[in-house]
This record gives sequence, C-alpha cells and structure tokens, in this order.
Amino acid sequence: MKKSALQKARAAYQPKLPIALTGPVKAVAGKPTQSVANQEEIKALFPSTYGLPEIRFEKNSAPTPGKPINVGVILSGGQAPGGHNVISGLFDGVKKIHRDSRLFGFVMGPGGLVDHKYIELTAPIIDEYRNTGGFDIIGSGRTKLETKDQFDKGLEILRELDIKALVIIGGDDSNTNAAVLAEYYKANNCGVQVIGCPKTIDGDLKNELIETSFGFDTATKVYSEMIGNIERDCNSAKKYWHFIKLMGRSASHIALECALQTQPNVCIVSEEVEAKNMTLQQVVDGIADTVAARAAEGNNFGTVLIPEGLIEFIPAVKALIAELNDLLAAKGDEFAAVEPDAQRQWVIDHLSAEHASTYASLPAGVARQLTLDRDPHGNVQVSLIETEKLLSEMVGKRLADMKAEGKYVGKFSAQHHFFGYEGRCADPSNFDADYCYALGFNAACLINAGVTGYMSSVRNLVKPAVQWLAGGIPITMMMNMERRHGEMKPVIQKALVQLDGAPFRKFAEQRADWALNTCYVYPGPIQYFGPTEVCDQPSLTLQYEHKGK
Amino acid sequence: MKKSALQKARAAYQPKLPIALTGPVKAVAGKPTQSVANQEEIKALFPSTYGLPEIRFEKNSAPTPGKPINVGVILSGGQAPGGHNVISGLFDGVKKIHRDSRLFGFVMGPGGLVDHKYIELTAPIIDEYRNTGGFDIIGSGRTKLETKDQFDKGLEILRELDIKALVIIGGDDSNTNAAVLAEYYKANNCGVQVIGCPKTIDGDLKNELIETSFGFDTATKVYSEMIGNIERDCNSAKKYWHFIKLMGRSASHIALECALQTQPNVCIVSEEVEAKNMTLQQVVDGIADTVAARAAEGNNFGTVLIPEGLIEFIPAVKALIAELNDLLAAKGDEFAAVEPDAQRQWVIDHLSAEHASTYASLPAGVARQLTLDRDPHGNVQVSLIETEKLLSEMVGKRLADMKAEGKYVGKFSAQHHFFGYEGRCADPSNFDADYCYALGFNAACLINAGVTGYMSSVRNLVKPAVQWLAGGIPITMMMNMERRHGEMKPVIQKALVQLDGAPFRKFAEQRADWALNTCYVYPGPIQYFGPTEVCDQPSLTLQYEHKGK
Repeated sequence: MKKSALQKARAAYQPKLPIALTGPVKAVAGKPTQSVANQEEIKALFPSTYGLPEIRFEKNSAPTPGKPINVGVILSGGQAPGGHNVISGLFDGVKKIHRDSRLFGFVMGPGGLVDHKYIELTAPIIDEYRNTGGFDIIGSGRTKLETKDQFDKGLEILRELDIKALVIIGGDDSNTNAAVLAEYYKANNCGVQVIGCPKTIDGDLKNELIETSFGFDTATKVYSEMIGNIERDCNSAKKYWHFIKLMGRSASHIALECALQTQPNVCIVSEEVEAKNMTLQQVVDGIADTVAARAAEGNNFGTVLIPEGLIEFIPAVKALIAELNDLLAAKGDEFAAVEPDAQRQWVIDHLSAEHASTYASLPAGVARQLTLDRDPHGNVQVSLIETEKLLSEMVGKRLADMKAEGKYVGKFSAQHHFFGYEGRCADPSNFDADYCYALGFNAACLINAGVTGYMSSVRNLVKPAVQWLAGGIPITMMMNMERRHGEMKPVIQKALVQLDGAPFRKFAEQRADWALNTCYVYPGPIQYFGPTEVCDQPSLTLQYEHKGK
Repeated sequence: MKKSALQKARAAYQPKLPIALTGPVKAVAGKPTQSVANQEEIKALFPSTYGLPEIRFEKNSAPTPGKPINVGVILSGGQAPGGHNVISGLFDGVKKIHRDSRLFGFVMGPGGLVDHKYIELTAPIIDEYRNTGGFDIIGSGRTKLETKDQFDKGLEILRELDIKALVIIGGDDSNTNAAVLAEYYKANNCGVQVIGCPKTIDGDLKNELIETSFGFDTATKVYSEMIGNIERDCNSAKKYWHFIKLMGRSASHIALECALQTQPNVCIVSEEVEAKNMTLQQVVDGIADTVAARAAEGNNFGTVLIPEGLIEFIPAVKALIAELNDLLAAKGDEFAAVEPDAQRQWVIDHLSAEHASTYASLPAGVARQLTLDRDPHGNVQVSLIETEKLLSEMVGKRLADMKAEGKYVGKFSAQHHFFGYEGRCADPSNFDADYCYALGFNAACLINAGVTGYMSSVRNLVKPAVQWLAGGIPITMMMNMERRHGEMKPVIQKALVQLDGAPFRKFAEQRADWALNTCYVYPGPIQYFGPTEVCDQPSLTLQYEHKGK
C-alpha cells in the first residue's frame, strides 16, 4: 500500500483516552436498568441479559493481573470514518489485559463469522491502519445475524479459535442483533461475551447514554466542506441554485448538522415535513417562495440541502407509493399492455383521486421511473428517485406559474449534487479518531469486566477527551418493540431529529434570515495539525444538545 | 460574514514571496520575444505590443521613490482557488509603490468595466478575504472584452477614476482579450497599462514560461481528497464501480493529476483518445476489459476517472454530432412529426452508415437527449450528456455480451459522481495561497516597471517560494492564429496534455498495474498547518514536468 503524505504523518497520532482508562481500570455497577418501552416483552425475550446495571469505569488502585484472552471483531453495515480506530483501540485494550491476548477479525462483515472467514489482526497489520478512514482492514458487509443456525455456525469458529468475546461494530440493527446473539450465547452457556459499538454516519443511533454514533462527526465535516465550497462558488458566480442531497435514508441529522455548519438558504428536515403532514407540493412551494423572495432582491442564486430520505417522510407520497404497489400488483399485466405514451394517464385513471393528484404533480421522468423501475418483488424503488432533481424540476415549474401570475421576476437555473460516498471513508477527524479509539479500548475493558450484551459507551463528549466518561450500557435498555416486516420485534429505537431539540430549534430560529440573506459559512476541510479551535471541535449537534440539557 | 474557525485561523497566514520581491525591485529586460507561431500575423495585429522583451525582477540597491498610482482589477470567467490572494498581493504591491495608491475592483467580471460598476478595495475589505477561496470579493463574469465600443466605455471609467493600470485575472481567452486591450490602449496612447494573471483550474494555460495557472493545485487536491475517500469506500465495500467525472471541458490535466494522486483503476485521457482516433465503443470496451479482468480475480469493484470533455475528443462522436446538427437543421420538421417511439430509427435511417452505427450504439436516453435537447441555434447540447452514466451504461451492456460469450463472470453495479463546483472555490492550498499572492504582488511590480501587455510570471515553482523567480512575459509571445467561429483569430495556445510529456508517461507506465491490482492512494484533505511534506507540495504534474526537463 503506497501511503499519502498525510497518511504517513497521521499514523503517528496518538488518540487521547478518557483518564479513567489510562491505568488499571475498575468496573463499578450502577442500578439495574429497564428498556425504554415495552419492558415486559423485552424482558421476556432477553431473560439472561435484561435488567443488567449500567457500568462505569474508574481508576483501580488494586488491580488484579489479567489473563490472555482471544477476541473477535466484526464490522457491520455501511462504512463510517473511524472504524479502524475502534479496532486499534480494541487491540491495544486486549493487549493491555495481557500481552498474549489475540484479536481476530471476521472478514467482510457478519457473514465472515458464519462462513468462518477471518484473519488474525497482529500489531504490524493494526499499525498500518491507525487513524485512517475506511473499513478495508477486514471489510464490512450487510449479512444480518438473526437465526439460530447462524449463531451456531458462528460458535463453531469461535470455539475453534478459543474466542471468548466478540465485538460487533455497527448501527442500530447490528447492535440489536448483537443483543440477540449475546442473549443466545449467555442463555446457552456458550462462554462468549458480545459487546456492541455504536457506528453510523447517519447519527440516528443515540440516546441519553450514547451521545453520538461514530463517523457522524467526520462525515458531516466532509459534506460541510463541500457544501461551503459550493456556497462560495454560488455566491461568486451568483447564477445558480444548487440542490444538494445528503446521504441518510432515515433521519435528517446529517442535513441538519451541515445546515448548522454552513447556513444554506434552505434545508429540508424530513421529520418536520412528516410532523406537519406536508405534501410534496408544499415542500416545493416553500422552496419556490424562497427563490422568489431572493430574486426580488436581485439574488438569483442559492443553496438547498435535502436529506436523502425525504420522499419517504412525505405522508402523501408514502401513501401514493403503497397504492401504486397494490395497483401494479393487481393489474400489472393490464398496465404492461398500455402504450408507453398512455401509461401515465392510465395510472392516474386507476389511482384514488387523492393519490392521482400527487402522481400527476410528479415530473414525467419520475412518474415513469415509479412504474417501470420496480424491484424483484414488483415494488416501486423509492431509492432510485433523484430527489434533488425532482425538487428542482418541480420548483422550476412552480416558478414558471408564479411568473405568469406576476409573483416572480428572476432567472432560475439549477445544479445538482449528491454527497454520500465522499464522506463515509474519510480520515477520521481528531474527534472521531479519539472517540473511536476510546470506544474500542473501552470495549476491551467491558470484556475484561466479564459482561455481555453491553454497548461500549463513552460520554461527556463536548469536554476534552481526558474528561470523557467510560462505561457500558445494557443494549436491552435501548430497546422497544416495533413492527418490522409485519412482525413485532425487539429493536433499538432509532433516534430521529427532535423538533423540540436544541439543534433543530437553533436552526429554526435562524432559517428565515439564512433564506433571504446570504449568510453562508465556509468551514473548509478537516484539519489535523492546527489550533485546537480548528481541529478539535465536536459537531454542532452535539454541542447544542449538550447546552440544551 | 460569520467566519468559520478555519477562516479565522487562516486569515493570519502570511503568504511567502520570492526573495527578489521582498525589498526594492529592479526590472531587468531580456531579449526581444517572438510569438510561438504565425509571427508575421501576430506582429501585424499587435504593432505596439509585439516583440517586447521578457522581464525579470531583481533586488534593487538604488531604488527611486514611487508615486501613488490607481489600479483596477477584474476577475474573469470561472472561479479558481486563490483569486482573493492575487488581489491581496496586488493590493500590498501597489501600496508598496506608494501608500496613497488605490485599488478599484470592477464588479461581476469584465462587464463591470464596461458598465462602470466598481468598488474601491480598501485595507479592511482586503483583510476580510486574505487566504480565502471564492471570487466573492468583487464577483466574476463571462462578458468578453472584444469590441472597440467596450474598450472605449472602459476607458471612460478608467479616466474618471484616474486608473493607470488594469489587471485582468483570467484564463487563456481572458488573457488574449487583455493583450488586445493592451494593444488598443497603447496604440491610442490612452495611458493605461494592462497586465494579465494566469487563472484556471483546468491547467491548460501554461507554457515554457508560465509553469501553471493558479487554482489547479487546490482544485485537484480537493477532487483527489474525494476520489481517495470514494476509493477507500470502494475497497471496503467491494461491490461498486464508481464512475467519476471531473470538470474541465477541454484538456484532461485535472483527470491526469487526480489519477497520479489517487491511482484509480482506470483514467481516460481525452487527448489520448483523440490521438489514437478511438471510437466511443473502443473506450467502453477498454473499461469493460478492465472490469472483467478484475472480476476474474474476484474483485467486482473499481474506480474510473473521466474528463468532462471526453465526448468532444472522440472523433467519431464529434463527426456524428456535426452530421446530426446538419440533419436536424435540414429536416427538423419532418423529424418532429415522427412518433416518439420511432424517432431513434428515423435518425438511424437518415444518418450516413458510419455515424448511424455510432448513434445506434448510444443508450436510448442519450440518443434521445441528442435529438431533443438542442440549444437556441438548434444545435445538439453535448455538455448536457452525463458522460459518466453514458459510459457505465455502455460498459454494463458490453459486459452482458461478454458474459453471454463466457468472457466475463462477475457482478457489475455502478455509482456516479461529478466533481466540479466542489473545488473551484476551496480555500487555496499553501501553494496556491503563495503563488497567487506572488502573482498579484508581481503584477504591481510590472505596473511599476511601466510595461503593458504582459502576463505576471512566477516560476521555479517546485522550489520553496523564496527561490521562485518573478517577472513578466509579453502575452503576444504565447499567441498563435486559430480558427474561432469561422474566423482566424490571434489567441493564446491552449496547453493540452502532451502524450510525450512526463506526467502522462508516468501515468502510462503504471496504469496496467493500477487497473488489475488495487493500488489506491488516499491523499486526504488539504492541510494548512502540518508538516511541510503534507502542506507544501505542488501538484504532481508540476513536479514530473520539472523532473522531465
């Protein structure tokens, strides 16, 4: 591997640890816990791992010598900056327990456990990956660990390698599965602990005790760098509206954080659209009104941030898609026989009046895509919709109407961007480098404490790293029951943007000003070596949430 | 303007100057110059400014006191990182001539000169913009200064403001116009000097004496940051081919520089495609062969870099477009009357056999776009073609054929990206911050030397900034005669990628290895405060060109 100059310089960075983890560590148990909802059901499903106490780590003045332990690690789901540091922290942590401890990485995600594909992670390998982005050290994958068969297959290789603890680095679903696996191994006295680590750039795995998932900080900083650069271009050329879609299928945390960092003219927050029961046309009209208001001041340019998941948060579109799926399932053959040019009208004629009008409002290309590009089950593929183009096209149409009515005088020309892959494997910011290293190191401490079904928890994150608090949270504590694929399942509650939360309120207070005036902020690229106010600031979401407490 | 933490920290950066410019400066004239070609024609067109000597600056032991001078400055064309530093260097340079000197900025490009729109750039304004990206200090525009009327209108405001020298910051066309303007003002004894500065992220304004245009360094570093992040994602998930289009309508310098920095699996260089007279299908087949070769090793992922201008460099496509334009001009009404579903066949039937086969090879969407989305003159709009999607779609089709023939076993799934606006207004790298500041400061020295029709020239750029050489080059020296819109015109020769040049050769030597193996390099974001090997390296293009000399 040929290394860039930055990689070489960055390899020497020593991530900071919370003070409690820097010497011998003592686990102190708090009070027993309860799940956030559905306590009885969750308790029944997790008889061996429910109700466990929160754990916090303190300095230990009378440590007992550790014994060598073999540990396995899995990267699950989409990439997030800092994964390599979780693994290097974990490595250093298990080596601190005993120098003869060993770390095995299962390859290409949870599938590696089931298929017995692994590598031993030795010091030379770990050293190649410290403070780097990506998950390429062992790869990641999306296989879900859910079945008894998988658990038993996994156990075979764990026994073969004498692995006593497994660390699963993943998002809400992966950690839910980690809890189920922990329960299974515990209930069957398999002698394998399971520990989770909170990963996702989307920022939707968080709660009172997990302040943020790792990767969110870096990814939003990369996106904000690019948004800022585009804003500056926009404000220099003064001739385009830039529609920027940001990755994240569910929550709008990424869009909101980027908006707080860059102060665009418009930022759509899916959770607000859903809460206000807005239609697609209302979203479009809102943007068009901002375009018109700026045009009235002679400013025919602007930036709009759009969360990737928007479409599925619009109640009317969600209902339309459900009805479309039913219609095409029932009358697919009849539809297929219709001449291409007449298909749009056929769909309109066969939908209920309410959904027909939503469908009719869609640009031809999107309407066509909804009926033609269906998945193997015949379902509409919402994820293929280029929401940024859909919105700009509808805004353009709306503006043409407004112009005809004399309500808009200006020029509207749009550019489109979608940022996702650009940020998921960036070199972790100092914050994520430290946070991830601490999460991994802390996971080793949880292993040493003998617990299972816990998530590695590092808190107090707006403070300098030495003041961070380290410990573990029973995963069952974060669970409730939700309907998934028609069945009630125990799952970790997804954290959506809270409209009464401090970050959204901060945004809502300022957005009218940002819309009309040009208040762009240009954050620039992540810096690793400069002054602390440039290099070591956590996300604004985290800062505002902390202040809001 | 609310400033980001980086902006605040970066404001304090003091760009470095060549040693010759740090004290009193003496202009030393070299030998008279000749244009690169068509000497007689160029000489006839520029009787007052042709054949001037090259100028170099040296330290002056016996300086004469300067007099106050009013200077104007214009930003012309697309944004490039560092424009604000050219202006701040110019400001500091004219203030060094005399503290009562004044600098005026014409607003929103050359149009500001013609329309008499300007602001005075005072110290507090300049200080707000030091070391920042963007052209927002005075805005930019694409009005071409070409006519006598424009020159005379400009002269009115120059006289009104008592401006004795005008600095035009722009690309090859803008500097060509600067030379024409210089000639006009000189021939008519207007008493206004005109100095050009070489700007363009495309990197195609360079020659023996102008080593690089400013902005190329920063923009390619931003694109390489993102390409590297995508490569790392690609190599972690191992499931996508990423097709990445890079801005630059003409030369492929950007794609080549990014390839040298990030070592993707494939990088198309338009100049090579043209030189080898390759068809679109040959380009596609080449990529498909790489996909298949990697798939044979179990690697169903990769990255492909594509220069924005590719399509217009493919001789067969260029010829097809010319014939399409003629056909639709002659039989547009007949075409319009054809049923949409039959239009493709109609076009095929009406094209010559050679071009019909090229047209038939295009995916339906692109073929449709070529005939429907025409500009106001009825011409096909090549720039609307999403080349990255066109290529990936054709590669997918080719792979399906190869699979049927048993020549390909694998999965092919593509993601698309286009990087342009993300890099044009980035905060300038240390290199561009220094280079731009020196170009601007040096322009003031040229003004003080009393010359006109010169381009600010700072050379020896692979060395530390103090060792850079400063001076001026007569713009006429870079000119030749070229056909533009049917007329022979004096223009600055555009610098395309030289296939026998060191950067391309370096790429060509390694690309077979990069194609089959995974040799990605991850440059990471531009750093401003770290070790010099991370923060202060010029582009690889510049480094290899220098070594190749």
